[in-house]
Amino acid sequence: MEPFEIHILGCGSALPATRHNASSQVIKIGNKQFMIDCGEGTQLQLRRGHIHFSFINHIFISHLHGDHCFGLIGLISTFGLLGRTAPLHIYADVMLEKIMKPQVEFYCKDLKYPLFFHNIDATKHAVIYEDNTITVETLPLKHRIPCCGFLFKEKLKRRHLLGDVANFYGIPAYMRQAIKDGADFTTQSGEVIPNSRLTRNADPSRSYAYCSDTLPCPANNEYIKEVDLLYHEATFAESEKERAKLTFHSTARQAADIAKEAYAKRLVIGHYSSRYEDEELLLQEAKEVFPNTQCANEGEVFHI
Amino acid sequence: MEPFEIHILGCGSALPATRHNASSQVIKIGNKQFMIDCGEGTQLQLRRGHIHFSFINHIFISHLHGDHCFGLIGLISTFGLLGRTAPLHIYADVMLEKIMKPQVEFYCKDLKYPLFFHNIDATKHAVIYEDNTITVETLPLKHRIPCCGFLFKEKLKRRHLLGDVANFYGIPAYMRQAIKDGADFTTQSGEVIPNSRLTRNADPSRSYAYCSDTLPCPANNEYIKEVDLLYHEATFAESEKERAKLTFHSTARQAADIAKEAYAKRLVIGHYSSRYEDEELLLQEAKEVFPNTQCANEGEVFHI
Repeated sequence: MEPFEIHILGCGSALPATRHNASSQVIKIGNKQFMIDCGEGTQLQLRRGHIHFSFINHIFISHLHGDHCFGLIGLISTFGLLGRTAPLHIYADVMLEKIMKPQVEFYCKDLKYPLFFHNIDATKHAVIYEDNTITVETLPLKHRIPCCGFLFKEKLKRRHLLGDVANFYGIPAYMRQAIKDGADFTTQSGEVIPNSRLTRNADPSRSYAYCSDTLPCPANNEYIKEVDLLYHEATFAESEKERAKLTFHSTARQAADIAKEAYAKRLVIGHYSSRYEDEELLLQEAKEVFPNTQCANEGEVFHI
Repeated sequence: MEPFEIHILGCGSALPATRHNASSQVIKIGNKQFMIDCGEGTQLQLRRGHIHFSFINHIFISHLHGDHCFGLIGLISTFGLLGRTAPLHIYADVMLEKIMKPQVEFYCKDLKYPLFFHNIDATKHAVIYEDNTITVETLPLKHRIPCCGFLFKEKLKRRHLLGDVANFYGIPAYMRQAIKDGADFTTQSGEVIPNSRLTRNADPSRSYAYCSDTLPCPANNEYIKEVDLLYHEATFAESEKERAKLTFHSTARQAADIAKEAYAKRLVIGHYSSRYEDEELLLQEAKEVFPNTQCANEGEVFHI
């Protein structure tokens, strides 16, 4: 199967800490690369992770708190210094373009590539990106300012044509796509070979959901049902549940509740408050509810 | 003597590299802390260096290239999150305030501290900051956009009153400042005690000059003459002299020429191009001209 990888560039929260960077991830699906959030220092993390700058064409910003977008102007500038020519698309709340306008005018007037801002309505569940193999949907979240998660889903894939059987029946090249889509094959003598003898099952269509920063939002469970991997913020431990509520964040246990209720296959937690020396407590609390939980860490790659 | 320290937070150049951060330094003089430049990631470097955020009240920005100022908005926001109430003063080209205006309006409307932008005219040598013990002067530099260096100078200090002698003559407290300033003392019996018997020499007034990014500017030598420590950019090795000229940067040897011609006591080079695996070549080339040269590195502290 083609790669479907989540590269963690940063999984800390708002206050700078020595152990974690501000939020950012790169999602590699096949030969495409997408970025989610772009906190300060993201370009340095790309370098450290040996991730190709030039393959990133789409950046999705969950919300406009600084720890999720202050790295954008540096990245945009660096793309320019590196001689980029491919268009760059940024998906974010409508305010981002306004906030960045004078910066973009000052720093980007000599850019050799077009820069597009696409407005996201964080209150609605909608498909905001689609290509031949994947879709990206927004997941409305509950934070202090407009905020949404993102659901990356592979489209249904074609069945695998069995090479030896295809050769045996002499199936011509022009018919093979139709057979991968489920068609039977009729030989020159009129014999109908059912598709099930010509193909094997398609690879499963994989999915990844990113939910940060938010109060628990069970309303999204219908969209993320049986998701292969759920990244959910877990800013606080259970002892800080009240603080989580006040600041519109989740505890690790609440993240695990969402994973359990949505029948997610795996949970990765992140966006840790800088008050925690390590994430052991958060991991334990999540695992009590949802055992298949892991902690995100800078430089780590999760394969789906 | 009170501390006079240069804390290197970042000494790389424009392109992100794994070994160096974007430009920033903290200058500690006595109990005061000043920041020069604030590239992306500066607040993380402050954390790593265990430098108190709250003691920084004045930030001097040499020019508006991103690797010297993209960390500002993050630092300003973090000051707010940390509950800062003391005013913050930023000294920079007039364009900075304009570029940052919508960001400041969006992110800083709830700040509990006043934020002041002070415009610098980078073409002029001028005192832009002064308090009871130090002055900061601009050093006009030659870069692709308006750019200046900064000269930190301690004012002339008072002489040290010799405690035992002062007690012997019963010098009252209210006269001691005048004696530290050079006055003689007349006893009740009319005997004049010359100042030289009451005091010893004042500590020397120390100085630090920061020159980045620039073509060599010998015109500043008169201002930085005999400076205790000169930080000068050395983006390139001598083999890239033409490229240095084209991009308005200096080679390590040119930095050393300036140090030598200005009779600087020590030279620290920095702002290394990311093309160099290490700085050995740059250091060698500088030392051939000016032996008392050191390389800046993140986390390093230079004591004056």
